[in-house]
Amino acid sequence: MNNIGVIRIHCQDKTGLIAKVTDFIHRYNGSVIALDQHTDLGEERFFMRVEFSFKRTDILPDEIRDNFQKEIATPLVMEWSLKFTDQFSRMAIFISKASHCLFDLLARYQAGELKVEIPLIVSNHEDLKWVADKFGIPFYYFPITKESKKQVEKEEMKLLEENRIDFVVLARYMQILSSEFIERYQQRIVNIHHSFLPAFAGAKPYHAAHARGVKIIGATGHYVTSELDAGPIIEQDIIHISHHDSIDSLVQKGKDVEKLVLFRAVKAHIEEKTLVYKNKTIIFM
Amino acid sequence: MNNIGVIRIHCQDKTGLIAKVTDFIHRYNGSVIALDQHTDLGEERFFMRVEFSFKRTDILPDEIRDNFQKEIATPLVMEWSLKFTDQFSRMAIFISKASHCLFDLLARYQAGELKVEIPLIVSNHEDLKWVADKFGIPFYYFPITKESKKQVEKEEMKLLEENRIDFVVLARYMQILSSEFIERYQQRIVNIHHSFLPAFAGAKPYHAAHARGVKIIGATGHYVTSELDAGPIIEQDIIHISHHDSIDSLVQKGKDVEKLVLFRAVKAHIEEKTLVYKNKTIIFM
Amino acid sequence: MNNIGVIRIHCQDKTGLIAKVTDFIHRYNGSVIALDQHTDLGEERFFMRVEFSFKRTDILPDEIRDNFQKEIATPLVMEWSLKFTDQFSRMAIFISKASHCLFDLLARYQAGELKVEIPLIVSNHEDLKWVADKFGIPFYYFPITKESKKQVEKEEMKLLEENRIDFVVLARYMQILSSEFIERYQQRIVNIHHSFLPAFAGAKPYHAAHARGVKIIGATGHYVTSELDAGPIIEQDIIHISHHDSIDSLVQKGKDVEKLVLFRAVKAHIEEKTLVYKNKTIIFM
Amino acid sequence: MNNIGVIRIHCQDKTGLIAKVTDFIHRYNGSVIALDQHTDLGEERFFMRVEFSFKRTDILPDEIRDNFQKEIATPLVMEWSLKFTDQFSRMAIFISKASHCLFDLLARYQAGELKVEIPLIVSNHEDLKWVADKFGIPFYYFPITKESKKQVEKEEMKLLEENRIDFVVLARYMQILSSEFIERYQQRIVNIHHSFLPAFAGAKPYHAAHARGVKIIGATGHYVTSELDAGPIIEQDIIHISHHDSIDSLVQKGKDVEKLVLFRAVKAHIEEKTLVYKNKTIIFM
Repeated sequence: MNNIGVIRIHCQDKTGLIAKVTDFIHRYNGSVIALDQHTDLGEERFFMRVEFSFKRTDILPDEIRDNFQKEIATPLVMEWSLKFTDQFSRMAIFISKASHCLFDLLARYQAGELKVEIPLIVSNHEDLKWVADKFGIPFYYFPITKESKKQVEKEEMKLLEENRIDFVVLARYMQILSSEFIERYQQRIVNIHHSFLPAFAGAKPYHAAHARGVKIIGATGHYVTSELDAGPIIEQDIIHISHHDSIDSLVQKGKDVEKLVLFRAVKAHIEEKTLVYKNKTIIFM
Repeated sequence: MNNIGVIRIHCQDKTGLIAKVTDFIHRYNGSVIALDQHTDLGEERFFMRVEFSFKRTDILPDEIRDNFQKEIATPLVMEWSLKFTDQFSRMAIFISKASHCLFDLLARYQAGELKVEIPLIVSNHEDLKWVADKFGIPFYYFPITKESKKQVEKEEMKLLEENRIDFVVLARYMQILSSEFIERYQQRIVNIHHSFLPAFAGAKPYHAAHARGVKIIGATGHYVTSELDAGPIIEQDIIHISHHDSIDSLVQKGKDVEKLVLFRAVKAHIEEKTLVYKNKTIIFM
Repeated sequence: MNNIGVIRIHCQDKTGLIAKVTDFIHRYNGSVIALDQHTDLGEERFFMRVEFSFKRTDILPDEIRDNFQKEIATPLVMEWSLKFTDQFSRMAIFISKASHCLFDLLARYQAGELKVEIPLIVSNHEDLKWVADKFGIPFYYFPITKESKKQVEKEEMKLLEENRIDFVVLARYMQILSSEFIERYQQRIVNIHHSFLPAFAGAKPYHAAHARGVKIIGATGHYVTSELDAGPIIEQDIIHISHHDSIDSLVQKGKDVEKLVLFRAVKAHIEEKTLVYKNKTIIFM
Repeated sequence: MNNIGVIRIHCQDKTGLIAKVTDFIHRYNGSVIALDQHTDLGEERFFMRVEFSFKRTDILPDEIRDNFQKEIATPLVMEWSLKFTDQFSRMAIFISKASHCLFDLLARYQAGELKVEIPLIVSNHEDLKWVADKFGIPFYYFPITKESKKQVEKEEMKLLEENRIDFVVLARYMQILSSEFIERYQQRIVNIHHSFLPAFAGAKPYHAAHARGVKIIGATGHYVTSELDAGPIIEQDIIHISHHDSIDSLVQKGKDVEKLVLFRAVKAHIEEKTLVYKNKTIIFM
């Protein structure tokens, strides 16, 4: 039986990089399934994602990691990652009161659309406990006050660690995370913002959109950084609206974009199709 | 032969407004072709556009205007307008160096897609004189310096007046108009901004979009007000982009959205399908 | 307290129709909230939807119905309907094995996005009983064979009748209904077809789309008529695809369009925003 | 100074293909600028486009061609092509009476958006001669009757040959080309069809769309094959329409999609971003 691995790389642009990496895979009888590369000519930076199959009888996963580091990544000063697609990532979902993103993610999870484990759901409200219960996923309720926030986050981080959580999805979680939390899960917190950033950053974007009289609303899936709503954008989409739309109907219609954009962003993250460089993303095919 | 008129109205919301207006048309043997109404419940404001046919043998255009004012508009405190579709508006196009919007408007004009007269084109550069010449439209070159700007605008306004210009289209005109100019052509200057406002207002929006790493770029057709890039939005659209796009390719792709959005905004204006209220637009069907 | 009613009308085009209907509402102290009208000039047919508020102290719902029939609809030979928005329609969902549309509808129902009652779910497979159970909605399993089909449909129609079902949603129900069933629920069966009809009618549209090498796939929400996949279209949408997409990924991506298009079609039906005339729909704002 | 070449390849899938090709480029001191590959797992077929820079002092264009054939393409049984981006393709435009696609292509050509030469325009009507004249491009008028068709096509092919035309764009050319013509310019005739194929193939698609009551219309850019409207699809796009749209307004709105889709298809062809395999296309990034 074949195993499948995904290597993501970025490094200074040089000639021969693709040949070197694909030759490495080839030497261990691996076979490239998909290769997507991008060169940022302005930044002189090279980015690549290679998906490849190999046989454990030819080489062990750990050997690939060690040999690639030694033979390729160290000499070429690469930042890189390697993941095997039979290892499912462990994803925590943080929510507040809105159910649409949560329902969408869980329905897709149940239908096998998201290749991931969901060991737990965290919320600062009890309202959606019943949804977690319906799907049989442990629900942790952490009420937050200004005073308790710091302490609560500590407990949350402990919980994530105990459950070996790989990444966190903020599915309309209406709390701002501390720098400490963000640092610990750098490029591993996916948030959905309910506007096409950078328009209408901050709270109440639909109210702002209605006040400005725009003809389009959108949603943005992005990695969380310490600067609010300014992290690297993974995915965006929009819908057309009109003067008929009240704030309420903007909120209603917006939900459909939010849940679709969040799903696509989460899927890209899970499939190792994202790379962050200097606050921008490369999204591989 | 039948004539066709378009009445646009807004006023405080009351019961019976539609019945009163349609009954008025009916009383003069007019016939409603299309009626679109909208009530802004928050503002308690009523908006309506009625397109109707009538016979000059039954009532003269001027009589409609006088009688509607007396019988309907004055008693109900309406702001309203009346236009007959056999009167073509006179449109001036202001440009700088980019040709795509100009070409698109002129090609559509030639093909009969824009029911309008174009008596003149104004530019602060001579670069596109050849395009105006190709289409046989008088081209006025007004070079602008910081010092001459005020004087030049005066000449431009004089030119517009002499040519009985009804409205002005800024087809990528890279100059900021004075308040005086804007006042004189209030809700009669249509501009294309090369971003989905309010994101990336100001100069060089594609550079800003590239720097921010967005996955969508757009364009906004709007009426010009004295606050830069903040006027009532008529039309917006977007296209999806990716990390493959350089600033150059954003500019290239953006042009396609710009020209389409500008055309739709201009068409809506010409067909009296726009109404401005408190810096927002109602766009009728 | 105010009640809200919705009148939908179509009839031969004549002058004065709007004035007559709005005047009727006005005479009973009703107030028009929204009016959308359309005249098909080719067919000389007039279509209108009026949403209005009224007080039961001024006129009773039954009186509106009787008086409108007598004073307006009969003299003007109208086909018309009247519904009060405090009466929730009773909707039955028919499914087979695919869960995405069902989950989406039920999540929206729970979140209050669909103003409707869902007394029951019908399926020819037991696979999704657990979903119905999660949401506490009675699930009826009717296995179907070629031989039993006619008899089973009778039982289904009996069940719908006993539960006073107003309309049926086929949420990826993979059975063809008999003419008898369709006749009984004419313009009251909303189906989602997984292609942009008329392209790829029939079974396995994603396979057909893949074989043809299209760059767009879509979904169509339509009323069911006796001719397969040929009923009046309510809503359509699409997504872009590429040569990277396998049949599997088309199916995956298609689901997102299907559930959104089905929801929008169902919402339009519930809100009385659809009118069918000669196998085409008018969709009001 | 650097030269830039584009290699397109397809062949049976094998391991090591990417390494071999990129290593070849590397050996001649070439440098990969962009590489996009795709493997069709069902067909076991490998597709790749590589854009690379090289110095004529290191290797001559003809040597690349000869050596690649000998060292790579022959041993690996590849179908392949090589083009240098400083050689502009020579494009002929065929038109009938509609001007929108022609104007759009010529305006883009003038603005430098299409890196191509346009030695001539062919038409079966004289209506658009003035457009060709405006842009200073030779216009050839070939009136066609049933009887003359075969003879006329011969003259057209002679003209194309004399002008060393590389490929033909049918910009709403309302004539069906003979198999002989199509054979001679296989995968080198780009057509715009005014519907989202396979829906509404054949003549008068907007009439058919109006009759069917669809909510979306579209356009398809494709290579012409002997089976009408059935050739490999390069690009498709759509716009939303409503019951308000008459056939006339469908035609009007459709033009905007047609010209945009045709431009994108032509641009992909010019930039060697298309590959045809078994009546489907691979469209590279």
